[in-house]
Amino acid sequence: MIIVMKPDSQEKDVAEISKTLSSLGLGVHISKGTERTIIGVIGDKRVLSDVPLELMPGVEKLVPIMESYKLASRTFKPEPSIVDVNGVKIGGKELVIMAGPCAVENYQQIMDAAFAVKKAGAQFLRGGAFKPRTSPYSFQGLEEEGLKLLKEAKDATGLQVITEVTSEKAVEIAYKYVDMFQIGARNAQNFHLLREIGRSGKPVLYKRGSATTIEEWLNAAEYIMSEGNYNVVLCERGIRTFETATRNTLDISAVPVVKSTSHLPIIVDPSHAAGKTQFVLPLSKAAIAAGADGLIIEVHPNPRCALSDASQQLTPESFDELCADISKIADIVGREFKHE
Amino acid sequence: MIIVMKPDSQEKDVAEISKTLSSLGLGVHISKGTERTIIGVIGDKRVLSDVPLELMPGVEKLVPIMESYKLASRTFKPEPSIVDVNGVKIGGKELVIMAGPCAVENYQQIMDAAFAVKKAGAQFLRGGAFKPRTSPYSFQGLEEEGLKLLKEAKDATGLQVITEVTSEKAVEIAYKYVDMFQIGARNAQNFHLLREIGRSGKPVLYKRGSATTIEEWLNAAEYIMSEGNYNVVLCERGIRTFETATRNTLDISAVPVVKSTSHLPIIVDPSHAAGKTQFVLPLSKAAIAAGADGLIIEVHPNPRCALSDASQQLTPESFDELCADISKIADIVGREFKHE
Amino acid sequence: MIIVMKPDSQEKDVAEISKTLSSLGLGVHISKGTERTIIGVIGDKRVLSDVPLELMPGVEKLVPIMESYKLASRTFKPEPSIVDVNGVKIGGKELVIMAGPCAVENYQQIMDAAFAVKKAGAQFLRGGAFKPRTSPYSFQGLEEEGLKLLKEAKDATGLQVITEVTSEKAVEIAYKYVDMFQIGARNAQNFHLLREIGRSGKPVLYKRGSATTIEEWLNAAEYIMSEGNYNVVLCERGIRTFETATRNTLDISAVPVVKSTSHLPIIVDPSHAAGKTQFVLPLSKAAIAAGADGLIIEVHPNPRCALSDASQQLTPESFDELCADISKIADIVGREFKHE
Amino acid sequence: MIIVMKPDSQEKDVAEISKTLSSLGLGVHISKGTERTIIGVIGDKRVLSDVPLELMPGVEKLVPIMESYKLASRTFKPEPSIVDVNGVKIGGKELVIMAGPCAVENYQQIMDAAFAVKKAGAQFLRGGAFKPRTSPYSFQGLEEEGLKLLKEAKDATGLQVITEVTSEKAVEIAYKYVDMFQIGARNAQNFHLLREIGRSGKPVLYKRGSATTIEEWLNAAEYIMSEGNYNVVLCERGIRTFETATRNTLDISAVPVVKSTSHLPIIVDPSHAAGKTQFVLPLSKAAIAAGADGLIIEVHPNPRCALSDASQQLTPESFDELCADISKIADIVGREFKHE
Repeated sequence: MIIVMKPDSQEKDVAEISKTLSSLGLGVHISKGTERTIIGVIGDKRVLSDVPLELMPGVEKLVPIMESYKLASRTFKPEPSIVDVNGVKIGGKELVIMAGPCAVENYQQIMDAAFAVKKAGAQFLRGGAFKPRTSPYSFQGLEEEGLKLLKEAKDATGLQVITEVTSEKAVEIAYKYVDMFQIGARNAQNFHLLREIGRSGKPVLYKRGSATTIEEWLNAAEYIMSEGNYNVVLCERGIRTFETATRNTLDISAVPVVKSTSHLPIIVDPSHAAGKTQFVLPLSKAAIAAGADGLIIEVHPNPRCALSDASQQLTPESFDELCADISKIADIVGREFKHE
Repeated sequence: MIIVMKPDSQEKDVAEISKTLSSLGLGVHISKGTERTIIGVIGDKRVLSDVPLELMPGVEKLVPIMESYKLASRTFKPEPSIVDVNGVKIGGKELVIMAGPCAVENYQQIMDAAFAVKKAGAQFLRGGAFKPRTSPYSFQGLEEEGLKLLKEAKDATGLQVITEVTSEKAVEIAYKYVDMFQIGARNAQNFHLLREIGRSGKPVLYKRGSATTIEEWLNAAEYIMSEGNYNVVLCERGIRTFETATRNTLDISAVPVVKSTSHLPIIVDPSHAAGKTQFVLPLSKAAIAAGADGLIIEVHPNPRCALSDASQQLTPESFDELCADISKIADIVGREFKHE
Repeated sequence: MIIVMKPDSQEKDVAEISKTLSSLGLGVHISKGTERTIIGVIGDKRVLSDVPLELMPGVEKLVPIMESYKLASRTFKPEPSIVDVNGVKIGGKELVIMAGPCAVENYQQIMDAAFAVKKAGAQFLRGGAFKPRTSPYSFQGLEEEGLKLLKEAKDATGLQVITEVTSEKAVEIAYKYVDMFQIGARNAQNFHLLREIGRSGKPVLYKRGSATTIEEWLNAAEYIMSEGNYNVVLCERGIRTFETATRNTLDISAVPVVKSTSHLPIIVDPSHAAGKTQFVLPLSKAAIAAGADGLIIEVHPNPRCALSDASQQLTPESFDELCADISKIADIVGREFKHE
Repeated sequence: MIIVMKPDSQEKDVAEISKTLSSLGLGVHISKGTERTIIGVIGDKRVLSDVPLELMPGVEKLVPIMESYKLASRTFKPEPSIVDVNGVKIGGKELVIMAGPCAVENYQQIMDAAFAVKKAGAQFLRGGAFKPRTSPYSFQGLEEEGLKLLKEAKDATGLQVITEVTSEKAVEIAYKYVDMFQIGARNAQNFHLLREIGRSGKPVLYKRGSATTIEEWLNAAEYIMSEGNYNVVLCERGIRTFETATRNTLDISAVPVVKSTSHLPIIVDPSHAAGKTQFVLPLSKAAIAAGADGLIIEVHPNPRCALSDASQQLTPESFDELCADISKIADIVGREFKHE
């Protein structure tokens, strides 16, 4: 970290800061420029997290030099991580596709969805049991009943299952039914929930919040990891911008940016980014071409009868075409994906 | 709601949609234009919330005509609401100021803060006991111990106390200690928590999320109100934009916009919007001039020793000046605020 | 267009509006709902562009139903357009790549760049002669001298040349030297310049502004097209968002969105979107996978000596690899690109 | 400026950079930290504007320490500037209000507007002669004819007149008719136009672009000032965000931020920020309360007949009320404004 002093700061201001830093075991390097004095701070800046340096006399501003997250950074762990969910490896050579309906609705629906996505090559079945809906008057999910149906679909197909958890209680209930938790964008900075998931030890797909910078996202991942749970897979699903032609703006650059600063795997959710089925295929291809480790896609056996997010769920036929295309692009970018 | 048909839609598509709408008890009005057929839907559109009209054959898009929230809207309740917290009325002629430290740190700190803000005219003492911090390595709050200190400060000064709750468990613990709950920006779409607060019946200060539109915010307030808790006060605290000179961009227009579409009171948090003490005073004055019903301000007896958000907490002296200025502006805009 | 009336609007308000619309030759369809009366307007709404309907008594708001641009829309021209620049077809089966330095610096630099990009497969040489720089103290371009060098490079290699024009005078000077004009993001809503380019008749690459919605962009393209110049190629180059890890946020979804609403070709500029060379390759692959008709890429024979935008210009070697990769992805998405 | 080296950088990399900097006359300060070496650069960094330091071997990133603009900064000129337009002082104790119609339409309209705004206390008459409209099919302004009418209104009332110029030619034509030029948001980074205005020497109201950071805005002001024209008044008029309840999001914080980093006066345009007359009054009061030096407001003698922006133009009666309110707030914030 760099401390930039005000033009009118005094020698004694610099001396007092140096003293404070030294007392915390940090090194100090002072540069006197033509217009400003600058103090370089050397050592682990986390000891400074609750020290209001910016309020000390003569200080103009603080300039961070390194990322503030640690466990998620490439500096900490240079080689890419692979998250292993019962043998399915996320972040390795093989691409991983998670697919299924927005919400688990009934036995027939989830079974049909499960067999359809399995046939096309998906390794994971997704399905919501606890639904965070914009309006309280909309369908809110089957809760534990839905989790039981997911488990049945898992047993019948051998797919791994993933579901969103929205509260401590949901984590507790879902623990025994699913293979992986999902944290949705609306809870991206619900630190209480992140810690709970950290303590659970179960692999987690952690979606970016719609107003969260990549740096804040990796910092928040630290809440999960600092509890000892390193099985974190990131998911880019679009950010909020002024553009309204799509539900969110897919930040495709987040894929190479995350790859350059973190060792965690990253997949893309084109369904929530686009909000419209017609854009899901091009965005899926773009995500894999950009280097994503996989996709999570909404697929419904009969979208016209879906109880939520109807306009962004693919039919099994469209999803099958998507998997075929992804399989071809995988080769070009040095990855693998088996489509039938 | 308006359904816009595609240029190449068929007579039978329109007929099928009309049939579906009629079967739900909705009225239908069909307009054939030169390039498009348009179907007007008449009646309570909430019966449509889980019907994927946009997927029916021939449909190009849906255009909502009315706001999707009900209980929070002026259409539902034309006169402004006043939220009464043990006799302190928020939304009436008198402005309400909530002030206190970012976090409760110890007995002396909270007592000093309480007496200082009371003296300047504040009606509420704020103080965090459960702190959502960006990094897990930062101070996370005193939890129940902090709540007890808040209660002591309340008993000593007669101030109402407000604290942020970040989980179901926090709601349960804090219930008996505080007069009003606060929902922070990071939990603005944590619907599980909103419902819990709704069930608690306790007055709540509900902050806007940093990527939440005003319409989404009012929709989410519906989660609290639909549980029977109408004691909701909104709080604008800045949104996320490309500008980084301030911590967030205070959306000052949200004040008159909310006043025009909702009956709920709205106050402003200039401390989190600005992120720097030097901008808190001008933004506070602007908020009151724009018609806000009050302010929530971070004040610390000794900001240089604060354990969190040090750079945005006012000294008691600055807060006193702020209250003096607010008192004068109150007169100009037809409100009242007693300083001293 | 739909006119939504206020809940307390009168019969006579509706009658007056109907009269106004009829007098303009427009059809009217009135729907009386349970809470609102709605008026559908039938006909070419452009006659309304200067009629302040929203101020007529009883009107709550106007809801547009159709896009407001015409010449650029798929409704107007359903089949995709191909822009032919001296035989190089943009928008056809073959992908088009434009490449070259940020700025033309001297004879050797532009010749080296031209031969290098030609060898890798590019069909266009780009190079700035009029540079809009953030600071007035930075290199501003060689102006006409630079255009002469571009022309020499064209004559030597057979490449088409494209350059940015930033004023009416620049249009006039550059006309005889270059094959295609470029309008930069900073001038995306400089309507005066758009009209000038429209009148020039020369093919134009029209970049999206960093705060321009897709709809506004297509509307502004109408300024060029309404002057009779239909040779417009769009270019997505990133929009401004809260994320700062990249120079801009590439809105990759703009590619399929534009394809679905407009017939104009669209290419992508990953260099300005990313702002860093290390992200140019993944974003280029993503753009082609998403369906873009081509790319415009900054390439400099010796980036370390570049006079502007050094950190986002590829070396000839990296550009050659990029073209090889694009060639492979082209096949997968049903396009062609000849590398070597 | 600070240069942060990569963890694996070599001694020789640091040596080479030091040599480069020294050869440019800059001082160098090297700090070796536990994880990174950091190089402090001492001296006028403008000599570095075209040196691609970020591409030198071993460099991870550059961190700017000081603002990149000079003439507009408080560091350069600590006391606030007052721009004098024929005796009307902008930036002094007296608030300045500019008001008038969006566009000059005809003799009667501009005369009525001029007398009305003069009566309420405005010192400037605004009126557009060159209109940048979103659609080419909308009214584009009366051009020179409109300027003549403005001049007649000036002669009749003694008001100063201001008009937007959108091209070099417009600057040339308007020079003799008006007292102050306006640069609109769409041309905020049209550097060619900024230079022209700089050369003209005439006072200018320079609006912020809708996607321009405050720092970029001040940098661009440098284009005007570096041509010798120091008579620059800034104007905040709202930025583009995800919120659509208002036309733009008024960044009210820009007022105190600009005051803290620049000596230039700043006024606010609530009409374009809000886009709706009902929000103009509260935003105007907020702007003055936040410390703005004045306002620019759209007023039309008969908004229902306006040829452009009808929904955001005040009636003379509403404007008179606004001026009365502003006059009262002026007192509270230590300013003056004479309303009748």
